[in-house]
Amino acid sequence: MENKFKNIDGGICAAKGFKASGTYCGIKKPNVDNYNPNIKHKNDICLYVSDVLCNAAAVYTQNKVKGAPIIVTKANLEKSDNKAIAVIANSKNANTCNADGEEKADKMCQLVADELNIPKEQVIVASTGVIGQILPIEPIEKAVPILVKELDYGKNLEAATAIMTTDTVKKEYAVEFEINGITCHLGGMAKGSGMIHPNMATTLNFITTDCAISGELLQRALSDIVKITYNCLSIDGDTSTNDMVCLMANGLADNEEITCEGDEYEIFKSALYEVMANLTRMLAKDGEGASKLLECKCIGASNQDTAITVAKSVICSSLFKAAMFGEDANWGRVLCAIGYADAEFDINKVDVDLRSSKGTVAVYRNGSGIEFSEKEASKVLSSDEIYIDINLNDGDADATAWGCDLTYDYVKINGDYRT
Amino acid sequence: MENKFKNIDGGICAAKGFKASGTYCGIKKPNVDNYNPNIKHKNDICLYVSDVLCNAAAVYTQNKVKGAPIIVTKANLEKSDNKAIAVIANSKNANTCNADGEEKADKMCQLVADELNIPKEQVIVASTGVIGQILPIEPIEKAVPILVKELDYGKNLEAATAIMTTDTVKKEYAVEFEINGITCHLGGMAKGSGMIHPNMATTLNFITTDCAISGELLQRALSDIVKITYNCLSIDGDTSTNDMVCLMANGLADNEEITCEGDEYEIFKSALYEVMANLTRMLAKDGEGASKLLECKCIGASNQDTAITVAKSVICSSLFKAAMFGEDANWGRVLCAIGYADAEFDINKVDVDLRSSKGTVAVYRNGSGIEFSEKEASKVLSSDEIYIDINLNDGDADATAWGCDLTYDYVKINGDYRT
Repeated sequence: MENKFKNIDGGICAAKGFKASGTYCGIKKPNVDNYNPNIKHKNDICLYVSDVLCNAAAVYTQNKVKGAPIIVTKANLEKSDNKAIAVIANSKNANTCNADGEEKADKMCQLVADELNIPKEQVIVASTGVIGQILPIEPIEKAVPILVKELDYGKNLEAATAIMTTDTVKKEYAVEFEINGITCHLGGMAKGSGMIHPNMATTLNFITTDCAISGELLQRALSDIVKITYNCLSIDGDTSTNDMVCLMANGLADNEEITCEGDEYEIFKSALYEVMANLTRMLAKDGEGASKLLECKCIGASNQDTAITVAKSVICSSLFKAAMFGEDANWGRVLCAIGYADAEFDINKVDVDLRSSKGTVAVYRNGSGIEFSEKEASKVLSSDEIYIDINLNDGDADATAWGCDLTYDYVKINGDYRT
Repeated sequence: MENKFKNIDGGICAAKGFKASGTYCGIKKPNVDNYNPNIKHKNDICLYVSDVLCNAAAVYTQNKVKGAPIIVTKANLEKSDNKAIAVIANSKNANTCNADGEEKADKMCQLVADELNIPKEQVIVASTGVIGQILPIEPIEKAVPILVKELDYGKNLEAATAIMTTDTVKKEYAVEFEINGITCHLGGMAKGSGMIHPNMATTLNFITTDCAISGELLQRALSDIVKITYNCLSIDGDTSTNDMVCLMANGLADNEEITCEGDEYEIFKSALYEVMANLTRMLAKDGEGASKLLECKCIGASNQDTAITVAKSVICSSLFKAAMFGEDANWGRVLCAIGYADAEFDINKVDVDLRSSKGTVAVYRNGSGIEFSEKEASKVLSSDEIYIDINLNDGDADATAWGCDLTYDYVKINGDYRT
């Protein structure tokens, strides 16, 4: 992925005026008396807060089964006219499919609101973890005052690790960009999508910026960029009940607020793409049991939807994913997946290359496979980041989709690890 | 699955007037001089022929990449006004993505036509096997006269084994039924969907009947039944380039031809469902690396499309498939898959049970999980045939989908075995 912007540290605290904190409160333990804040466990709850009220935008899971935090957050943002100050998120328990789920999610917002002395509807709540287990509220009641006390402009990492479930690495990315000579920052954190426990409700994305931008454009930008980043990610085709992307803009960069589409809006969108695409890529690379990142770029499409459909079709093919695990250059599986993509194009004009840092192998031209060296192909596919380049030769639109290979570990993680 | 009709032997030869034969011709061998019809190998080519001209109906893969035999068969049936006498099919080579593919497929029809002295367009051709390898025509030229010579009313098994690639069992099913007091027969054979070699173009279904039925109703019945049987089968979500279902009716049962919808047509459709549903079930059970058959029945739907969408969504979920391999009763994954099914229903009215010959476990009622005994659930899921019963409590429509668990062997078969 080319870097258009300066990559900076700081994750959700890269933007001015965002403090974060994270702690271990013991959600995982059924017996909450085990909770001892002085013993340092892996964090399971975090908070981040803007110094001033933010415009907030969000995109939620399309699953009909929605986690209670999704329902409560949506209701809050409706009441607050899409303004928010604080986000509280926990891991280890998704608070989904529970009779008292909404009550508990609402309580989490109330606890934060009381402690920060802000309206409850300006608090966003998210949970990730096991579905169908009652969320213990007592450890959260004890944790919120600690989280508020420990809030700091440099504690993004405390938050980024608190949302991890079985992620093997924390996922943060941030960039610096300029709007009319004013330096702005945009950064985020994500979690997903390892699921050792059954029913993990998987992916969360939290993004902050100090760029001043209207609430309407913030939501438009987020919806547009989600479509070509997070929605082009597939680990196994399942859509979680708790998936959420949340973007907050506090305007503390002091640029003139972006209120209409134009050059400034495009720069903002590019910065958002940069951060979300990199987070998406990290999620793919850390996919369940993954040994290889797969990145499929479809160019030469007549329109962007076609490019997205084709690239996703390849990334979602179990057969192709298993072949990549086996480092097997069977282009037939790429072609098969392109062929059943629900989009209009001429299959006889398609070009396909397989590429990595170790070289490129052209495998398909003009409706037929072409001769290639198996030795060269094996070398290319031995890399842990594989690029599938598709040219439909039918226009100027393009799109990228991200995924990972299908491995023994995927089956092991999802089949064997119940207890 | 309840049996409405008498199950009989005979596969594609169960219907009166259908002869079959199968042989090994050496398609797999690059050196055709190895071919020796006296050495008994596993068959790789078969022929079946009706004593009289048949009405023929077919359903083809929706993949944009279509095997050459699909293109040639489609063209032949258009030219012959959907009449056919003979079907020739080979395994080991899909004759797909080859520059000379259509020429070779056409040649196969010509060879049969010449030998049987019938018009070429009354011959249906199908190939299954590796994509992108040139089909050697010489072994087929030598085999066709042998196939014709060996045609026999009892050689359905010779044909059913000839279309196997890495299938672990042959797949045949046939029934007897009555139309106005006249006994009719309908039977078939199928192959799929083990794919040890890369790029196998997978599933073929061949069905014959002696029932007299108009060509238009034959196609209508086939299209309707394919929708609720074969199209409700998923091993891994990939749609092959060579998939085809072909149904031929020769009328030799001597019933009055069925020419309009009504009781007789419904009986015929039920018989067709019985055969195709059983073949579909066999395909699912023999899915790549499968250790368990999964059968998901969705009842109480407002319409059939909703029932199909919900049942298929569960069967296609990699997470659920892996959980079944691990014999893990995580209903959260069933709910998650129901939730992202693209259909309209109230998720809070849904009931879910997991069932096998060893018992039934109710896991979900009214929008929440319910307590169940893990021990009882483990016992139920230890069976090799698992039923997922979903009631949407929203109407009278139902549908069934078939699949299999996701296992280490699936990954091994599709990742490791490139020679």
